[in-house]
Amino acid sequence: MPVTLAQRLAAEFVGSSMLLATVVGSGIMAEALAGGNIAVALLGNTIPTGAMLVVLITMLGPISGAHFNPAVTLVFRVKGEISNADTLAYITVQLAGALCGVLLAHLMFDLPILQASAKVRTGNGQWVSEAVATFGLVFTILATRRFRPETIPMAVGLYITAAYWFTASTSFANPAVTVARAFSNSFAGIRPADVPGFVLAQIAGAGLALLFADWLLATRQTRP
Amino acid sequence: MPVTLAQRLAAEFVGSSMLLATVVGSGIMAEALAGGNIAVALLGNTIPTGAMLVVLITMLGPISGAHFNPAVTLVFRVKGEISNADTLAYITVQLAGALCGVLLAHLMFDLPILQASAKVRTGNGQWVSEAVATFGLVFTILATRRFRPETIPMAVGLYITAAYWFTASTSFANPAVTVARAFSNSFAGIRPADVPGFVLAQIAGAGLALLFADWLLATRQTRP
Amino acid sequence: MPVTLAQRLAAEFVGSSMLLATVVGSGIMAEALAGGNIAVALLGNTIPTGAMLVVLITMLGPISGAHFNPAVTLVFRVKGEISNADTLAYITVQLAGALCGVLLAHLMFDLPILQASAKVRTGNGQWVSEAVATFGLVFTILATRRFRPETIPMAVGLYITAAYWFTASTSFANPAVTVARAFSNSFAGIRPADVPGFVLAQIAGAGLALLFADWLLATRQTRP
Amino acid sequence: MPVTLAQRLAAEFVGSSMLLATVVGSGIMAEALAGGNIAVALLGNTIPTGAMLVVLITMLGPISGAHFNPAVTLVFRVKGEISNADTLAYITVQLAGALCGVLLAHLMFDLPILQASAKVRTGNGQWVSEAVATFGLVFTILATRRFRPETIPMAVGLYITAAYWFTASTSFANPAVTVARAFSNSFAGIRPADVPGFVLAQIAGAGLALLFADWLLATRQTRP
Repeated sequence: MPVTLAQRLAAEFVGSSMLLATVVGSGIMAEALAGGNIAVALLGNTIPTGAMLVVLITMLGPISGAHFNPAVTLVFRVKGEISNADTLAYITVQLAGALCGVLLAHLMFDLPILQASAKVRTGNGQWVSEAVATFGLVFTILATRRFRPETIPMAVGLYITAAYWFTASTSFANPAVTVARAFSNSFAGIRPADVPGFVLAQIAGAGLALLFADWLLATRQTRP
Repeated sequence: MPVTLAQRLAAEFVGSSMLLATVVGSGIMAEALAGGNIAVALLGNTIPTGAMLVVLITMLGPISGAHFNPAVTLVFRVKGEISNADTLAYITVQLAGALCGVLLAHLMFDLPILQASAKVRTGNGQWVSEAVATFGLVFTILATRRFRPETIPMAVGLYITAAYWFTASTSFANPAVTVARAFSNSFAGIRPADVPGFVLAQIAGAGLALLFADWLLATRQTRP
Repeated sequence: MPVTLAQRLAAEFVGSSMLLATVVGSGIMAEALAGGNIAVALLGNTIPTGAMLVVLITMLGPISGAHFNPAVTLVFRVKGEISNADTLAYITVQLAGALCGVLLAHLMFDLPILQASAKVRTGNGQWVSEAVATFGLVFTILATRRFRPETIPMAVGLYITAAYWFTASTSFANPAVTVARAFSNSFAGIRPADVPGFVLAQIAGAGLALLFADWLLATRQTRP
Repeated sequence: MPVTLAQRLAAEFVGSSMLLATVVGSGIMAEALAGGNIAVALLGNTIPTGAMLVVLITMLGPISGAHFNPAVTLVFRVKGEISNADTLAYITVQLAGALCGVLLAHLMFDLPILQASAKVRTGNGQWVSEAVATFGLVFTILATRRFRPETIPMAVGLYITAAYWFTASTSFANPAVTVARAFSNSFAGIRPADVPGFVLAQIAGAGLALLFADWLLATRQTRP
C-alpha cells in the first residue's frame, strides 16, 4: 500500500509544526536565560533548530519528502515532480502546521497564545540575506540529492546552523516559517509588515538556485 | 548463543545509569562554572546529554534495544514486542540504574549522596511541555526505526538536544529520569511532589505518539 | 556527459564564496552580539564555519573535488592528479570566489563593501600556528581519502572546528581565505601586510603533510 | 605491503601529539578569551577536543588502531591482540607524542615551552571521576567495535564531549594525556604530584570495563 495523500499532508503538518515549535520555543527559552548576551541566546536558538531539522527530515522524508517549506515545494513543482493540486495542499498544511507550532510554543511557555510581532526586519541587507539564505538552502537540497541523497538531513541541518549566523536576517529562508513567526512577539518574531519583503526575497533566491543547480548538475558522471 | 535476559537487563541498568550520571553531573558542573548565565549552563547540560544518548544507543541498542525509558518500554509492550515479565524487569532496572547514576554524580562532585530536590516544576506549561516532549521522542523512535533504523541513535540524541530548549520543562520525557532527578537538589532536579504530574504527561504524550505513528507509518512503500 | 571544466570552476567559485561569506558573516554577527565575550564570539564563528564546510564538501565534492583552497589544489598538482592549466584556473576562481564571499557578507550586514583589515596577525606563534593548521588539514584530507573517502566532508568540518581553537591564529589554513579576509576590517580580518607570512607558513605546512602522508599511507593493507 | 611497525608507531605519535595540542591549545585559547566565564571556556575546550578525536580515529584507525592511550593499549594486550613488545613501543610513543603536542601548543601561543602545572586535582571525587570516565571510554570502545565498528570514531568523540562535563575531573581518562598535561601550567594542566592518583584510577576503570564488556558482549547474536 503506497503512502496516501493524507499521510503525506499529515507529515508536512507535523513536521512544520515541530520545526516552528523548536524555532520559537528555543528562542523564548534562550532569550529568557541568556541574561542579555544575545550571542549566547542565538547559540541556544541555532543548535536546537539545526538538530530538529536533521531529525524531522530523517524521519518524515520517506513519507512526504520533508519539504516543510513552500519555496521548496514550488521548486519541485517547477521541476514537474509534484502536481498543482498537491502543491497547493502541501503549502496550505505547511502554513497551518507552522502556525500551530508557534501557538504550541506559546502554550508551553505560559505566554499569550495569539501574538503579533513588533520586531522590525527590513532593508536591503535583510532582503539580500534572505535571498542568499534561500539560494543556499535550495541549492544544498538539489545538490545533495543529486549525488548523495542519504546526506540530505544532515546537510540541511548543518546548512541552517551556519545560515543563522552568516546572514544578517538569521536566515528564515522559508515563507511558511516567515508567516508563522509574525505571530510571535518573541526573539524569533518578525513584524507582519515585513513578511512580504522576506517572502519575495526567498522566492527570488529559490528561483536562482533552481536555475544554477539545473546547469551545474547536468551531468551523468562525477569528476574523474 | 543469543543475548540473555541478564545481559539485556545489565545493558538497561548501565545505560540508564550513565545517562543520569551525565544529565545530573553535567548540570552540576555547568551551573557551578556558568557564573549565573543560565543559558550557558543549559548549553553545558544539553551538549553532553545529547552526545551521551548517541553513544549509549549506538553501543547498547544491539543488546537490549537501548530503551532506558519506561515510557518507551511500555510502547513496545503495547505493540507486543516485549513480554509482560520483561517489561516489568526492564522498568525496574531502568529505575534502579537511573537512581544509581544520580548517586554516582553526587559522589564524583563530592556532594551529599542522598538528596531531595526542592526545584518546583509544575503547572500547565510544564505538563504540556512534557507531553509534547515525550510525543516527539516516541514518534522519533517509531518513525526512524520504520524506514531508517541505523539513524536511531543520532536522531534520538539530536531530538533531545533540541527538546532541552524548545520545551519549558527542558524535556525530561522519561519517567525513570524524572523519578531519579527528584533525588538531586541540583540544576537538573525536580521536587518529588511534581513527579506524578510529569509522569502522567509523559505517558499521555507517549500514547498519542503510538496512535499517530501507527496510522502515519502504515504503508509498505515510501513516497514515489 | 562528464563534468565540464566550466562546471568544476563554477563549483569552486560558489563553494569558496559560500565559505568566505560564512567565515566573515558569522564573525560579524558573533562579534556584534557577544557583548565583549570573545570566546562566545569565537563559538559563534566556529560552529557555522565547521557546519558549512561539511555541507559544501558533501555537495560539491562530486563536481570539482571541493578544494576551495589553493594549498590543496597545489598538493594534488604535485601528486599529478590535476593539470597545470586546471591548477591555475582552480586557484584563480578560488581567489575570486573567496573575495566575492567577503563582499557579499559586507552587503548582507549593510557594511562598506570594500574594506582593508587593520587586524595584526604576525609573529612566530602565528606562523607556527598556520603551518601546523595547514599540515593537519592536508594530512586529514590525504589520510581520510586513502581509507575512508566517504568521511572527508565530516572530517574536514570537524578538523577546522578544532583548529579554530587549538592554534593561536584561529587556523586560516588556506591562501585564498587569507587573501580574501584581508579585505574585511572585521572579527575575521587580517592586515594585508601579514598575508605573505601566513601564506608561506601554509605552503610549508601543506608540503610537510604531503611528504609525511606519502610515507605513512604507502601500504595496500590496513592493520591486521 | 602490510602496515609496518614504524608506520603504526608514527600514527600513534602524530595522533597523540595532535590530540594534546588540541586539548592544551584550545584550553589556552578558551581561558584567554572567556573573560572569566569558566563554563564558556570549557565549551571552547570540549568542542575542539571531541571534534579532533573523531578526525584522528577516523584517519589513523586503519593504520595503528588509533589508541593514543596506554590504558587502551593495555586492554588490547590483556585481550591478546597486541604483543608485549608492541605494547611497550605503543606506550612509549604515546607518551612522547603527547608531550610533543603540549610543547607545540606552548610554541603556538608564544608561551614558555617547558612548564610544570600547579593545578591541584586530587581527592576522592576526582579519583572516582577518573575511574568512571575511563570505564566509560573503554566500555564505549569495546561495545561499539563489537557490533558497529564503523561508529567508533564518532562514539569516542561524543563520549569524551560528554565526559568533560559529567565528571568532576573533566575526564582525562588517559595516562599519556595525564602525564603530558602535567607539563602545562594552563587551563588543562594537572600538578605532577596528582598524576599517580589519576593514572591508578584510570587503570582501575579500564580493568572494570574490560571485565564487564567481556561478559556483556559474550554473545553471537544481537537481540531478537
